[in-house]
Amino acid sequence: MTNPELIKKLESTIENIPDFPKPGIQFKDITPIFLNPKLYEEVIEDLANFSRGKIDAVCGIESRGYLFGIAIAVALEVPFILIRKKGKLPPPFVGQKYDLEYGSAEIEMRTGQLQPGERVLIHDDLLATGGTTEAAAKLVEKQGGKVTQFSFLIGLKDLCGTDRLKQFDAEIHQILEY
Amino acid sequence: MTNPELIKKLESTIENIPDFPKPGIQFKDITPIFLNPKLYEEVIEDLANFSRGKIDAVCGIESRGYLFGIAIAVALEVPFILIRKKGKLPPPFVGQKYDLEYGSAEIEMRTGQLQPGERVLIHDDLLATGGTTEAAAKLVEKQGGKVTQFSFLIGLKDLCGTDRLKQFDAEIHQILEY
Repeated sequence: MTNPELIKKLESTIENIPDFPKPGIQFKDITPIFLNPKLYEEVIEDLANFSRGKIDAVCGIESRGYLFGIAIAVALEVPFILIRKKGKLPPPFVGQKYDLEYGSAEIEMRTGQLQPGERVLIHDDLLATGGTTEAAAKLVEKQGGKVTQFSFLIGLKDLCGTDRLKQFDAEIHQILEY
Repeated sequence: MTNPELIKKLESTIENIPDFPKPGIQFKDITPIFLNPKLYEEVIEDLANFSRGKIDAVCGIESRGYLFGIAIAVALEVPFILIRKKGKLPPPFVGQKYDLEYGSAEIEMRTGQLQPGERVLIHDDLLATGGTTEAAAKLVEKQGGKVTQFSFLIGLKDLCGTDRLKQFDAEIHQILEY
C-alpha cells in the first residue's frame, strides 16, 4: 500500500492536460516528477518495496518505463532488461506483436539477458488498455521467465488493463488510479 | 578522468555487433551494462563526479539518455528534464528540428521546466555526429538556459561530434572513445 502522503504529493505534481493527444482525452503529464529528485526517490522507494525479495529481474518498457524501472532494479540489486520498440536492438532478439487502435506494433528484447526460471517484474509508467504490457509479458514467457509482478505509476481504470493482465497470475501494483 | 578499471570493465561488457544497423557498421550494444547494477552505479558515480557543483539541471535525450541521465540528476539533487521525440509531449513545449542522413527529425522539451540562467548538462548515451545533441543544446538556449556541460558514455571519434559541439563553449566528457 502506497503512503497516502506520497499519493497526495504525486496528484499535486502530475499535470492534467486537456484534449491531448486528441479532443476529449485528458493527458497525465508525469514529467514534473523528475524535476523533484526527492519526490522521485519516494516513488522508487514505494516501487522497490512492492518488489523486494520477490523478483530476479526488472523489464522496463521504452521509454518512460526506463525512468523508474532502472532505479527499481538498482535499489533491489537485480538486472534491468530493456524492452524496446522494433528495429532498435541488434540481433539476437525476440519480438512480440500487439494490436493498436489502428494497426499493430512490435516490441523486442535481446535474447540471453533473461535466464529461464527467473521471476520478473514488468514495469511501465502507465497502464492503459494493457496491450503493450501483455506483449512484454509474452516476451518474458517466450524466454522461459515467469512474470510474477507488474508495477505502474498510474493505472487508468476505465480502460480495464488489469483485466487483460489476469492471465499471468501476477501481482499488480498501481500507485495512482484514475 | 575516468578510472581505467571502469573503462576496462565497460569495454568487456559492451557488445560489438557487426553489420548493424547496416552492413559495415559495428554497433556498440550497451544494454549488458544494465544487467549489472554495481557496474551501472560505477558509471553513475563517474558521470556525477564530472558534473558535481557545476550544473543546475540535467537534460536527457530519449530514450537511452534517460537511463543514466535520471540517476545523474538524482545523485546531484537537481531537476531532470526530458527531451522527447516529436509528438509525445503535451503543450506547451518548444521544438527544434535537425538533419538526419535522409530527411529531418525534431525533438521537444516542455516549457517552464528549465529556468532562465540555469547551467545545464546535456546527457546522452552516445555521441555520433552530434546532430541530436546540437538540437538539444539549442532547445536549452531557446529557453534562456546555458549549456555548460555535455556527457556521454561513448563517443565515436570518426564522426567528429565534439567539433559540432564547440560552438557551445561547454565541457565535454566521454567515458569511452572509439
